[in-house]
Amino acid sequence: MEVLVPFSADRPKSRLADTLSPSERAAFARTMLADVLAAIGDAGGSPRILATDGFDPTDEPTVPLDPPVTVDDRPLTDAVNAVLEERRPGGEGDPLAVVMADLALATPAALRELFAAGRDADVAVVPGRGGGTNALVVSHPRFRVDYHGASYLDHRRIAADVGAGFAAVDSHRLGTDIDETDDLAEVLIHGEGQAATWLREAGFALDASEGRVAVVRE
Amino acid sequence: MEVLVPFSADRPKSRLADTLSPSERAAFARTMLADVLAAIGDAGGSPRILATDGFDPTDEPTVPLDPPVTVDDRPLTDAVNAVLEERRPGGEGDPLAVVMADLALATPAALRELFAAGRDADVAVVPGRGGGTNALVVSHPRFRVDYHGASYLDHRRIAADVGAGFAAVDSHRLGTDIDETDDLAEVLIHGEGQAATWLREAGFALDASEGRVAVVRE
Repeated sequence: MEVLVPFSADRPKSRLADTLSPSERAAFARTMLADVLAAIGDAGGSPRILATDGFDPTDEPTVPLDPPVTVDDRPLTDAVNAVLEERRPGGEGDPLAVVMADLALATPAALRELFAAGRDADVAVVPGRGGGTNALVVSHPRFRVDYHGASYLDHRRIAADVGAGFAAVDSHRLGTDIDETDDLAEVLIHGEGQAATWLREAGFALDASEGRVAVVRE
Repeated sequence: MEVLVPFSADRPKSRLADTLSPSERAAFARTMLADVLAAIGDAGGSPRILATDGFDPTDEPTVPLDPPVTVDDRPLTDAVNAVLEERRPGGEGDPLAVVMADLALATPAALRELFAAGRDADVAVVPGRGGGTNALVVSHPRFRVDYHGASYLDHRRIAADVGAGFAAVDSHRLGTDIDETDDLAEVLIHGEGQAATWLREAGFALDASEGRVAVVRE
């Protein structure tokens, strides 16, 4: 299955600005992207990076990336819909998956469940915390995305509007996008890839001394 | 499968104190408990409430509850371990599940996956956000719980210490415990039971006007 991985190359992970410097955010975002690409490949998917302007996957030798890249500087919704127009999944084309680049807990098993759901249903969506759309598979030629706001609910409505069958995929791993400082704890608890290693080497650790688990930087 | 549902009857949902009055918190906690009990029943489980002191399931006629109740005023870890000692799952007894009462997004399908994982593995755990243990199934006679701090990691370690096979169950629905105001959005987005109805009737609604989804009270 072809899997589009949108990646914001110009302003990665701005909501981590209180915790990481700009260069750290760029490096960390890239480790998450590398983990997501590896999990997609291990799940039998063919990843393609959908990058904002100016992304060269070979320009950071510490995290080599080798998938094809499409650069599109439009907002995410427009860029993804342009690919859907061109690919026509379910019409002439195979299903198309869209998996966000900050799903640092993604595993091949979780992605295989998503791909299977997307082969059974016209549209399969993994909701993120707060009603976002962390990943989806489209097999219906008239479905289009709208990533603004509570996009999970919007995507369910859009599917109904075009007569597409809809499946929600229940996954904590794929439902956890790494946006804010609290999310880093999830990477340290569950992550098994480069992002978790990067955080540990940058001095981050779990701290359960106050009852709830938080991250601290040593 | 017998399913223990710990329920804090005396101070329910104290972290929602900024959003709900004490009587509202008690009523809302009870709607979540009712939803969890219904989902367990529909998944083929036999629920038993493990309540802190002073809980009478018949004292709130608007949300009728009819499962058996065990009252134990000790901390959660001690109360659950007392049941494990008595039941000896995997020794002489069948597996025992422990499912928290605030998993308002629980569905029969998600619980069936948990029960199946708990029949395959000696210990199956659904991690919650922040590394808690939202639900688990124990089929090993020597496994004991420890709910303090990052209990998901502790339970994995305890399973290894007693030679028990461990499975993590990947579920956003069961991984979402409703503790804080932000969590209420998840109930409004995904909930299909009494808790979602209660929130709507209390005036709560989703607000995506600032880009991120939040709850507002009208």
